[in-house]
Amino acid sequence: MSRVPPVDREFLDRARARQDRLTKPPGSLGRLEEAGVRLAAIQRTERPRLGPGAVVVAAADHGVTAEGVSAYPAEVTPQMVLNFLAGGAAINQIARAAGAEVYVLDVGVNGPEFPAHERLIPARVRPGTGNLVREPAMSPAEAMAALQAGENAARRAVSEGATLLAAGDMGIGNTTAAAALTAALLGLPASEVTGRGTGVDDAAYARKLAVVERALARAAAELGDLAKADPLDVAAQLGGLEIVAAAGVFLAAAAAGLPVVTDGFPVTAGALLAARLEPNLKDYLFAGHRSVEPGHARQLEALGLEPLLDLELRLGEGTGAVLAFPVLRAAAAVLAGMATFDEAGVSEG
Amino acid sequence: MSRVPPVDREFLDRARARQDRLTKPPGSLGRLEEAGVRLAAIQRTERPRLGPGAVVVAAADHGVTAEGVSAYPAEVTPQMVLNFLAGGAAINQIARAAGAEVYVLDVGVNGPEFPAHERLIPARVRPGTGNLVREPAMSPAEAMAALQAGENAARRAVSEGATLLAAGDMGIGNTTAAAALTAALLGLPASEVTGRGTGVDDAAYARKLAVVERALARAAAELGDLAKADPLDVAAQLGGLEIVAAAGVFLAAAAAGLPVVTDGFPVTAGALLAARLEPNLKDYLFAGHRSVEPGHARQLEALGLEPLLDLELRLGEGTGAVLAFPVLRAAAAVLAGMATFDEAGVSEG
Repeated sequence: MSRVPPVDREFLDRARARQDRLTKPPGSLGRLEEAGVRLAAIQRTERPRLGPGAVVVAAADHGVTAEGVSAYPAEVTPQMVLNFLAGGAAINQIARAAGAEVYVLDVGVNGPEFPAHERLIPARVRPGTGNLVREPAMSPAEAMAALQAGENAARRAVSEGATLLAAGDMGIGNTTAAAALTAALLGLPASEVTGRGTGVDDAAYARKLAVVERALARAAAELGDLAKADPLDVAAQLGGLEIVAAAGVFLAAAAAGLPVVTDGFPVTAGALLAARLEPNLKDYLFAGHRSVEPGHARQLEALGLEPLLDLELRLGEGTGAVLAFPVLRAAAAVLAGMATFDEAGVSEG
Repeated sequence: MSRVPPVDREFLDRARARQDRLTKPPGSLGRLEEAGVRLAAIQRTERPRLGPGAVVVAAADHGVTAEGVSAYPAEVTPQMVLNFLAGGAAINQIARAAGAEVYVLDVGVNGPEFPAHERLIPARVRPGTGNLVREPAMSPAEAMAALQAGENAARRAVSEGATLLAAGDMGIGNTTAAAALTAALLGLPASEVTGRGTGVDDAAYARKLAVVERALARAAAELGDLAKADPLDVAAQLGGLEIVAAAGVFLAAAAAGLPVVTDGFPVTAGALLAARLEPNLKDYLFAGHRSVEPGHARQLEALGLEPLLDLELRLGEGTGAVLAFPVLRAAAAVLAGMATFDEAGVSEG
């Protein structure tokens, strides 16, 4: 598993000092300023620069869909993978607009293997998770394989030119797994982190909440206190494969010295898992957007992140992460390219 | 003055219908969806597309700086114009990151003429406004000239390839003029729209508030009820030249069928003025960001706009408008390029 080194605190200080000498009133670029400073520390420079981005959209199925927790049938997962590869999904359009390549990681879709495609990374650990109400989502070895699949996908994106990386998700049923995993890792009751996902009605929401509660009880019977158990063991109990893969994406990208951006609720569950495995990860993480899913705020609190965008998205696929790429590029460009008061001959206030 | 036609409501309906057939849960792209629909109506298509953007940064000086209302000396206005032309300001870096050209419009800077530069549009109406506490900021004829300077700058940007346009501002003292103009156009007391600009202390803030109150009283003595007076006459009383020019930028760009994006408090005062002159302008307007300046929220309410970004910016120059360009491009790309459920063979929920 990738080791993530701490960022160099000296560059935080040096970048902050430079930020205050630039030709603008101090603090007038608001949250761009601290984002730029963090990018400087990640890149170990006073002048951070960001070029092309990439998003690894990890796709997998969920045995828990048998419990009727989603508004969409499970067959949508492979259908959407084909849509990603054909360029017809939201993430394709948003990635193009925001300067990002899309990689599709099949880490556990249920169905026939997909035809080869230059943007598809086939790494199916198993054809969907077990039903987490009744059985572990996956074995610990499978969880490690899913993590490594995410790491390998991130390494490919980096080798092909990515300078900042997001993870995205596709998996019908995955907000149920994300709720269970988030509740377990943070020691929270299911009711605080279970939302309506892509839009279930009241009856399905009640089923979903009961499912998360039963899954947490089952996993606790196996592992004891879930907030203190080995995080990868907890992820093996509660899944999903794409959530664990997202954790791998974050770890390998941060290990390579790239800033990484979280998306919505399932992907941020992956970020929580990754930060439990490698606490230094938090230094490299940015929150792309604030999801309307209620558990997302709890995840971001735990990670100490304030989202860059708040556009009421609840789609996933990495859309809310990639939309924030231009904001991060601008934050870097300000520090890298602006003149200081002295350089520009501008009077200070 | 540019006439702004209404957008075609039929395309609003057609774009909304298309939005709901795209391969995502309905509404899951949140505020991107309505932005896309509005872009469709502006462009009279179901498939809006946005390419390069541009920002016209209008610069001018303010006689009211004699009252000690700003934390910066007036000489900073021409110094910053040179900084814009040299590429050293925040707007230069952010525009590059967000895919926008920068045009600098000298509509009333006080000082020697600037050397010719390919990005400079020299159109100085007068060397700064009069001190609005004691005298009109400019004559009605000068206000019309400033408006036309903004219109001409926008037309140049459109002729050089801009597909969406923002206005930016540079003018030491201009939040005082913007507060006076906003209070006048909206019929609000000075205290509701006067903020600390780029950062004055308590004593300077008290002076600034008194200045706005006195300016409003003086203008009302000239024109009667300011909320009902001719808006360009009100602008002539209270200024500033760059605020009026920003109104011209918005009017000419909208007249050419482009979406236009507001920035912070001074530029949005220009948008208010433009919308009073041509009410159809509102159909073309997007709010780039929410400024920390308190009067900005009142302006946006009056325009019926919800900002796309909230990054605690308070710089101006068009920075908060241009940062929102990639969000608008993504909103257009979603509608233009995503597949429908039928096209992609994806099952609906």
